[in-house]
Amino acid sequence: MDFHHRGYQSADPRVQPAAGYGVNRSLEVPDEVDVFIAGAGPAGVLLAAQLSWFPDLNVRIIERRPQRLQIGQADGIQARSVETFEAFGFADEIIGEAYQITETAFWKPNPGNPAEIVRATRTPDDVADLSEYPHLVVNQARVLDYFIEAGRRAPGRVEPDYGIEFLGLDIDRTETYPVLVHLRHTSGAEQGKEFTVRAKYVVGGDGARSSVRKALGHQLRGDAAMHAWGVLDVVATTDFPDIRLKSIIQSHDGGNILLIPREGGYLFRVYVDLGETPDGDDGKIRLTPVDEIIAQANSILSPYSIDVKAVAWSSVYEVAHRLTDGFDDVPEKERDSKTPRVFIMGDACHTHSAKAGQGMNTSMQDGFNLGWKLGHVLTGRAGEELLRTYGDERLVTSQNLIDFDKAWSTLMATPADELTDPAAVESFYVQGAEFSNGFKTEYTPSLVTSDTTHQALATGYPVGRRFRSAKTIRRSDSNVVHLGHLQTADGRWRIHAFADADHTLLGAFGAWLGESPESPVVKYTRPGGDDDEFFDVKVIYPDVYRDLDPATVPKVFTPWKAPYGLVDTNKVFGQGEVDKQKVDIFAERGIGPDGAVVIVRPDQYVAAVFPLTGTKELAAFFDGVLRTAAR
Amino acid sequence: MDFHHRGYQSADPRVQPAAGYGVNRSLEVPDEVDVFIAGAGPAGVLLAAQLSWFPDLNVRIIERRPQRLQIGQADGIQARSVETFEAFGFADEIIGEAYQITETAFWKPNPGNPAEIVRATRTPDDVADLSEYPHLVVNQARVLDYFIEAGRRAPGRVEPDYGIEFLGLDIDRTETYPVLVHLRHTSGAEQGKEFTVRAKYVVGGDGARSSVRKALGHQLRGDAAMHAWGVLDVVATTDFPDIRLKSIIQSHDGGNILLIPREGGYLFRVYVDLGETPDGDDGKIRLTPVDEIIAQANSILSPYSIDVKAVAWSSVYEVAHRLTDGFDDVPEKERDSKTPRVFIMGDACHTHSAKAGQGMNTSMQDGFNLGWKLGHVLTGRAGEELLRTYGDERLVTSQNLIDFDKAWSTLMATPADELTDPAAVESFYVQGAEFSNGFKTEYTPSLVTSDTTHQALATGYPVGRRFRSAKTIRRSDSNVVHLGHLQTADGRWRIHAFADADHTLLGAFGAWLGESPESPVVKYTRPGGDDDEFFDVKVIYPDVYRDLDPATVPKVFTPWKAPYGLVDTNKVFGQGEVDKQKVDIFAERGIGPDGAVVIVRPDQYVAAVFPLTGTKELAAFFDGVLRTAAR
Repeated sequence: MDFHHRGYQSADPRVQPAAGYGVNRSLEVPDEVDVFIAGAGPAGVLLAAQLSWFPDLNVRIIERRPQRLQIGQADGIQARSVETFEAFGFADEIIGEAYQITETAFWKPNPGNPAEIVRATRTPDDVADLSEYPHLVVNQARVLDYFIEAGRRAPGRVEPDYGIEFLGLDIDRTETYPVLVHLRHTSGAEQGKEFTVRAKYVVGGDGARSSVRKALGHQLRGDAAMHAWGVLDVVATTDFPDIRLKSIIQSHDGGNILLIPREGGYLFRVYVDLGETPDGDDGKIRLTPVDEIIAQANSILSPYSIDVKAVAWSSVYEVAHRLTDGFDDVPEKERDSKTPRVFIMGDACHTHSAKAGQGMNTSMQDGFNLGWKLGHVLTGRAGEELLRTYGDERLVTSQNLIDFDKAWSTLMATPADELTDPAAVESFYVQGAEFSNGFKTEYTPSLVTSDTTHQALATGYPVGRRFRSAKTIRRSDSNVVHLGHLQTADGRWRIHAFADADHTLLGAFGAWLGESPESPVVKYTRPGGDDDEFFDVKVIYPDVYRDLDPATVPKVFTPWKAPYGLVDTNKVFGQGEVDKQKVDIFAERGIGPDGAVVIVRPDQYVAAVFPLTGTKELAAFFDGVLRTAAR
Repeated sequence: MDFHHRGYQSADPRVQPAAGYGVNRSLEVPDEVDVFIAGAGPAGVLLAAQLSWFPDLNVRIIERRPQRLQIGQADGIQARSVETFEAFGFADEIIGEAYQITETAFWKPNPGNPAEIVRATRTPDDVADLSEYPHLVVNQARVLDYFIEAGRRAPGRVEPDYGIEFLGLDIDRTETYPVLVHLRHTSGAEQGKEFTVRAKYVVGGDGARSSVRKALGHQLRGDAAMHAWGVLDVVATTDFPDIRLKSIIQSHDGGNILLIPREGGYLFRVYVDLGETPDGDDGKIRLTPVDEIIAQANSILSPYSIDVKAVAWSSVYEVAHRLTDGFDDVPEKERDSKTPRVFIMGDACHTHSAKAGQGMNTSMQDGFNLGWKLGHVLTGRAGEELLRTYGDERLVTSQNLIDFDKAWSTLMATPADELTDPAAVESFYVQGAEFSNGFKTEYTPSLVTSDTTHQALATGYPVGRRFRSAKTIRRSDSNVVHLGHLQTADGRWRIHAFADADHTLLGAFGAWLGESPESPVVKYTRPGGDDDEFFDVKVIYPDVYRDLDPATVPKVFTPWKAPYGLVDTNKVFGQGEVDKQKVDIFAERGIGPDGAVVIVRPDQYVAAVFPLTGTKELAAFFDGVLRTAAR
């Protein structure tokens, strides 16, 4: 963390000084706002926390519930989400309270006695070493708590206004605030009272039955039939030995359970598959009593059993694999002439089966994708066309995910004795790890993602995929640090210069980046603030960290900080060994003796890889997306 | 963390449910209290946080300051203190904001040009791998913040009452509340108003000029002469390349600087040695202007310099190595007939040079030593004689530390050209690592520390020293966990049973511990609560964790929890490999095929090592210190 550079502050450094609309944040929702978010679910609170880093924007987020969520349906946290939590400053805290998945147990009918289950195998969770972060389980309510706290700690101090529901909207593009939002108080002294707010942009994160989606005339399309699940969050005594392991349990008659241990050491979740809802069921399956679900679970678990002592939460719910026909308000045929004003994200756009644990995780990435783009456009950093890339990028991702999810659910629902390959479930699970952990997203070339012409220079940073962290050694203080953990979700771009062997190319690149009128750092950094107010520029040398001479480092890597003119010496990195840890990020990420430039978007995706000599291409890339604008 | 076993709670699990005096904690200091703590410094806030785990005790802590500390003198955090933070639940959080020391640079006069300094060497900080935790630097104000938060999160909700100063006390042992404390409001509406509180026990953590110590008639004894230091906390620009490394800098004329980088990336502290205060100086040295200290620092740093942009804090202070002649109110000659009612801790007992960074760290261990003992005695768990061990244990520790500190300070103050061994400073520093990191404390046999008869059974757990954590694998969920990180500072004793190779001895020991009327767990656990309300009993098997059959584990290791009768399955551990981590705690901590029992005190010190067959000795040990008492 970077602090005290504006003088000593005796305070929790995780709390940023308030600025802009965060200084005296109005208690009432104002009549006009820059961004209006409907729904304080996972996507909504992330978006709010992200926009809280743009304190000059007036951002509000409403939620129909009268207060914070007490308990929610989602609980699986992919490693990609934990990386995202890191960017919002709370990865370590939430890891501390979550259940950590290290292995999955697979149980099947005992071939000798198919009425009983036996453990077939255990599979490590992250075989492929996809992330330095673990796969977690923790209730959605706590995820929301942490994002809301992150929003409160960021300069804009954005946090939810509870007890307000979204009714509808009208768009008039001739207005400065083109979207008129109709709202109603659902609780409190003004319960029932309707009012309106004008917004520059509106975002709906209001769930599968999204009113914002309906207002846009979009529909969820996909499976006709719904699939039903009985879900229990319980504490129980049991003789089932894997009660604290994620377990996939298939009985001989096609019944199956997904068992998810939960945070705290006692609570666990059981998903009992109730199959496809028959035509004309009309919600009757949702009336299945808890006792019946418990009985069904016990039948599948035989010869083991659970003796439920308390039910924290239970639900029978139906879900289908469905995808919206649009992520924003601009119809396909008008995409060239109009840019979007209203967006939807999360369950409003895509619904999944429960078992793949994708819903909350994907929703958060929707919010992360959209947040910085809104921030850029509204602060004049980029043109409105940037906002088209949100739907373009997330649509493909959502479709891929649904395809994966369907294959997985179908396989899970197949009775064990009908599978041609008896290990089909385990194989699919292991092969799908990259998908199920959230790392299969790969954005294709666009305004904000370059092509892969220079990919060979940095094979470990695939363009369009999330920046995979690796350790390096900071020259200033000899600390081993994860490069990816220095990417606070503050809306800035990151430029990583990996030096060539003798620093010749690096020297020329550093001089150009710091001084050339063509350099994005020179063109797009607003005067009067820190040198790194918009571009976080770092250099990583292949040299042993102790051998680096700070006097030879180009000035662009040691930025000047307002108001005291201090110099940030913490952006220069090397290799070697400290504290018995051997570090060589060049080998780990496939960077050769000529070095490379790796550009990372504010949502942690690799935007581009360029050679150190590729200044023209680099300048052209940023000129394609950024705008110069007065402060 | 252990939660949801009393049913689902939608809340931050770090916040314990309030109990006892924590439920409706009175805003006013009551007339009668169980423990009265004067001074909310490092020792005081730790003690308050510890006693907040005894919510049936009425505990108050006062502080003369009208509000939280803004900036404090101390900043060095030994790894032992970070282990302690872990027990209070905030190690990871404070690590996240602190500066982490990995190396120390030694600078000396350039032999070719003695007026200029050159870097002689760099030394890794934790060569001996003394702890899994790092050595930190963070302002004392933040350490206090975290302990105060820990006290607020614990069941008793103990937190400081600011703006009250201690005036004096009277002891009348015939009273139920034998200590009458005289107090005065120093701020607020009642400023100047005096009042009294009656307490069962009083603890003074009120600094080097302690009024509680004076009230007891004790004095600090030791060096006659004071040593003066100029200290600056500044932000600056500089060409000194090691400005972000802990640096020990000696110039040719005996001038020396200790440079401590501080949290946040910019702030650093410079200690300039001003030498022994001449006789009759009478505080004049404390008037040395800041500019003069900066000039002196620049002279020592030549050919480098610092250009100070802002001074966060500066001070010239004088300190001597001194030690109190008593840690409590009972004179040596009355120790057999009386037990103490008033204690002092921290700087009230011992003062150190600034450079060894011992003051705050040692003070916290004073508080940690005393807290659980007061808790035990006041809840009827132990007799009052337990309280004698506080002074006995901490006196020896303090004396050893002062001896170390004096040797170090003397060496540091010796001009480089007068040293017979030119590497004397580095050598002493490295050899003294165990001392300077806080791990040299070794309590000798007493009521609460056994002898070393059976030390050979567990050579990695030296009796009387702090329990050194190591990794093990939890059977229930296949998580790699640090055994030492399961020792929340909740006032409980820990019994670790390391199983023998074929589990025969373990089986007999487990049965005895769970069922024998001689077993401390049977005798001293109060009925009506959790089985592990007072003894946290764990078993560690030498077997591969996957091979462990939970059905064969003795019941004492799977305790029953109120109110649902749930069973805690998370106290059974094995070895093996998970997530590419190989774990073998038996090899790492020197435990052989016959296993061992390792008893750990509530302050994380190893109280005893016994064989699995040593039930009589184990029973006798606990009978020596504990009392049965009605709930």
